[in-house]
Amino acid sequence: MRRIKLLVEYDGTDFAGFQVQGKGERTVQGTLEEALKRIAGHDVTAIAAGRTDSGVHARGQVVHFDLAGRIPGERIASALNGILPRDVAVRRADEVASDFHSRFSAKSRTYVYLLWREPARSALWGRFATWESAPLNLEAMQEAASCLIGTRDFGSFANAGGDPGSTLVREVKRLEVVEIEGRSLMAVRITANAFLRSMVRNVVGMLVCVGKGDLAPSGVPAIAASGRRELNPCPTAPPQGLCLLRVEY
Amino acid sequence: MRRIKLLVEYDGTDFAGFQVQGKGERTVQGTLEEALKRIAGHDVTAIAAGRTDSGVHARGQVVHFDLAGRIPGERIASALNGILPRDVAVRRADEVASDFHSRFSAKSRTYVYLLWREPARSALWGRFATWESAPLNLEAMQEAASCLIGTRDFGSFANAGGDPGSTLVREVKRLEVVEIEGRSLMAVRITANAFLRSMVRNVVGMLVCVGKGDLAPSGVPAIAASGRRELNPCPTAPPQGLCLLRVEY
Repeated sequence: MRRIKLLVEYDGTDFAGFQVQGKGERTVQGTLEEALKRIAGHDVTAIAAGRTDSGVHARGQVVHFDLAGRIPGERIASALNGILPRDVAVRRADEVASDFHSRFSAKSRTYVYLLWREPARSALWGRFATWESAPLNLEAMQEAASCLIGTRDFGSFANAGGDPGSTLVREVKRLEVVEIEGRSLMAVRITANAFLRSMVRNVVGMLVCVGKGDLAPSGVPAIAASGRRELNPCPTAPPQGLCLLRVEY
Repeated sequence: MRRIKLLVEYDGTDFAGFQVQGKGERTVQGTLEEALKRIAGHDVTAIAAGRTDSGVHARGQVVHFDLAGRIPGERIASALNGILPRDVAVRRADEVASDFHSRFSAKSRTYVYLLWREPARSALWGRFATWESAPLNLEAMQEAASCLIGTRDFGSFANAGGDPGSTLVREVKRLEVVEIEGRSLMAVRITANAFLRSMVRNVVGMLVCVGKGDLAPSGVPAIAASGRRELNPCPTAPPQGLCLLRVEY
């Protein structure tokens, strides 16, 4: 068996998330595994670095699987792209050491969250950005973001449904809020060693709360320190603005 | 009756073009007129500056219509956006003079055509850019583009189906080819007083021909001067890379 690492891109709009749910829903994993079975000639399990939620996109998801078939490594990406539907694509495929694991070998993940800032919703950006036309105080958001960098229990940013019993401590290495595309978009970029369930969307939800003036930046450390989602008054940001940009090894 | 000017954005992927075809197909015009009828309380005809083809997008299409209803001007855009499907949005609505005409009053139109340049197709850009992974000589394309600027008969860039008997002379005011997004995309931006049917896609088709080395830049003027599409050996570029960026009055 050869272990193959795929760099995968998808538009999450029409998927019920990455992971197979066992309910007959359309998932990225199920779609990939079906295509992989066709080129491999045997059942394949595709394991991803980040199990993105329903509606979340990826530019640089990393997936590994084991291949018994004889297809040459350099043909895997083009063979898959010929089979996969338009909303999933394989950017590259590489043979890796048999102990490489897309999730456990990853050192960090980087996500970007896009907010559409114009007075009217966008037909072109509607799939990839969340419309938020209210005035937002960028400086206050940046101040709040700086409070969240570092290693701590991120339980107050974790929705129910994560791995039970595991640690809630994560290290946020970088978190920045910037305006782009002539201020039509605001982008939140976040890098951490790993993320809890819906953690990015809860961080963005809090930053938007702060931007609107519903929460002072000075209130952020206490909520973060509480470690409990029910003590965090901010909503979870919707999925469509979120994209897994890259995974670092 | 008040005349209203709309700035309209749409993702053309799931539309059979702007104009109502009379065959029960889903069109931007039909979708807009249905929403306008609901807010106006009477039948409305929506007239666009550019009758974009099936699959072509718009960021800044301009549409005018006449309104008898009492809805205040400042509420028109938000009322329409509440009714319209996700792939059409009204960026703004303004009351204009009764002799304003979206098409006949326009001084120029600007389109952008995006080419996706990476080795693999893109799941995120697939709706909005045409995948062209072959090596392209940017300098040759820019040289060819400069030959097409100016006023001439553009018949060799017009597909059948335009207004019969009308002039084929158009003025291309600006035409540039640039690499963007770290060379993952190539953009062709073109401004003209008006365009013939599929003219932008034929110009891009020729520039890609030149970029691939299938046609020398020095061969462009003779083809342009012929005025006959059948003497132009280059294919028409596919619609999904094309977007009507803005209309100038």
